Amino acid sequence: MNTRPIGIFDSGLGGLTIVKTIGRALPGENLIYFGDTMNVPYGSKSKEAVTRFSLAIAQFLQKQNVKLIVVACNTASALALPQLQKQISVPVIGVIEPGARKAFDTTRNGKIAVLATEATVRSLSYPKALTKLNKNLRITQQACPVFVPLIEEGWIHPAAGEKIIADYLRPVIKSGADTVILGCTHYPVIKQRIAKQLGKNVQLVDSAQAVAEKVKAFLIQTDQLNNRRRGCLTVYASDDPKRFKQLAKNIVGRTLPRVLLKKLMP
Amino acid sequence: MNTRPIGIFDSGLGGLTIVKTIGRALPGENLIYFGDTMNVPYGSKSKEAVTRFSLAIAQFLQKQNVKLIVVACNTASALALPQLQKQISVPVIGVIEPGARKAFDTTRNGKIAVLATEATVRSLSYPKALTKLNKNLRITQQACPVFVPLIEEGWIHPAAGEKIIADYLRPVIKSGADTVILGCTHYPVIKQRIAKQLGKNVQLVDSAQAVAEKVKAFLIQTDQLNNRRRGCLTVYASDDPKRFKQLAKNIVGRTLPRVLLKKLMP
Repeated sequence: MNTRPIGIFDSGLGGLTIVKTIGRALPGENLIYFGDTMNVPYGSKSKEAVTRFSLAIAQFLQKQNVKLIVVACNTASALALPQLQKQISVPVIGVIEPGARKAFDTTRNGKIAVLATEATVRSLSYPKALTKLNKNLRITQQACPVFVPLIEEGWIHPAAGEKIIADYLRPVIKSGADTVILGCTHYPVIKQRIAKQLGKNVQLVDSAQAVAEKVKAFLIQTDQLNNRRRGCLTVYASDDPKRFKQLAKNIVGRTLPRVLLKKLMP
Repeated sequence: MNTRPIGIFDSGLGGLTIVKTIGRALPGENLIYFGDTMNVPYGSKSKEAVTRFSLAIAQFLQKQNVKLIVVACNTASALALPQLQKQISVPVIGVIEPGARKAFDTTRNGKIAVLATEATVRSLSYPKALTKLNKNLRITQQACPVFVPLIEEGWIHPAAGEKIIADYLRPVIKSGADTVILGCTHYPVIKQRIAKQLGKNVQLVDSAQAVAEKVKAFLIQTDQLNNRRRGCLTVYASDDPKRFKQLAKNIVGRTLPRVLLKKLMP
């Protein structure tokens, strides 16, 4: 039993999809979420920049006495995870390996597509993680650079959004993949829209459930599970917490508790 | 005569539309451009954040011995100009006042619309500047939050883009404005697309020309014009200069000189 909180971070709002799933799977855990709204988006920035932002946040979370850090951002997982695991003393879990494993368990025809940010696609993190599981998988990657800004703005142009989804899915459909990884924690927000265009024969995989299971297994294994009472959620944003709270409703479907401002100097 | 360079900055690529116009109007001047790709976009961030970023850049430009700084970004002009003028010892020129004046000179029916980022709209900078010129103007503001990310990505979804432009222009057309200010230095990139949807009876005003004229007048007045030979352009980006150079082609229509990496710690 360990009542210390779990730290979870993302470039902005997207990681709240992970908070939602972890909160459901582990209702007794106290969660601290950090949304780096000062530096959003990560997906078009360099490895060095993303690593610098991620380290500053992980150090802040460590000071909050977390027992574990979840990198609820595919870009940060793809670019900064080894550096975080080296420099941070508590365990750090990323979203890519659990998502890749789930996709591998899901596919029947061995063809998997990955939708992700430019930086995640360039890093080849999903192809590497998938190939480790089975070297004969056929993997298609598709960068979707405008999804994050459109979702961060509240997906306020649905008709245009449908066209943009269609643009990105064309090569995915052509690839014949039966399993598509939502390789960015923002994308579950538009999961239904993506699923509708892909059709019923394609399975969508988002890593949130897989990550929640990995966190739970780790806490049970290390005897750190906190299930005495209902846990609480503390939310920090590095810029404009009021705006963050307003937009968060689009992601989690309900009003967040108070969002605290925490500026970091990475 | 003063051969010191002119410093110009923006959150990313947009300010290059100003560089292009100033370069044409003042071909002898040496120009230093700083694109803050580490912190782009500014338009959805707080006043405090934008002021912090802007001050760090202006201090860097000052160290490059510039004779004048042009804030080639409407959001930074709207939120940070007074602070910059207070803390920076060389003259600092913003884009809002010149743009407002040009719109005032252009309108025939006294109805002016402003397309800008969320932060610029919230600041009321254009309504204030326009009302100073004539308090009877009828002013409509429209925030266009997804234009900057779409333009920074190279406007890769033109069909969806047309729909998004139509969404934003609906209230503008309804207002009966005969003059529309492109209140963000990114928007001239899609000027033709916006003009087409507004029709021939509406005049588009972008502040680039007005700013170039203001800079020229200032340099003549203070006897600092540099017109001996062809000036050169030096470009800095705070993250991923390679990507900046690639995307810059979409803005300036030709390949930039080498783009230098300059990280600032605001």
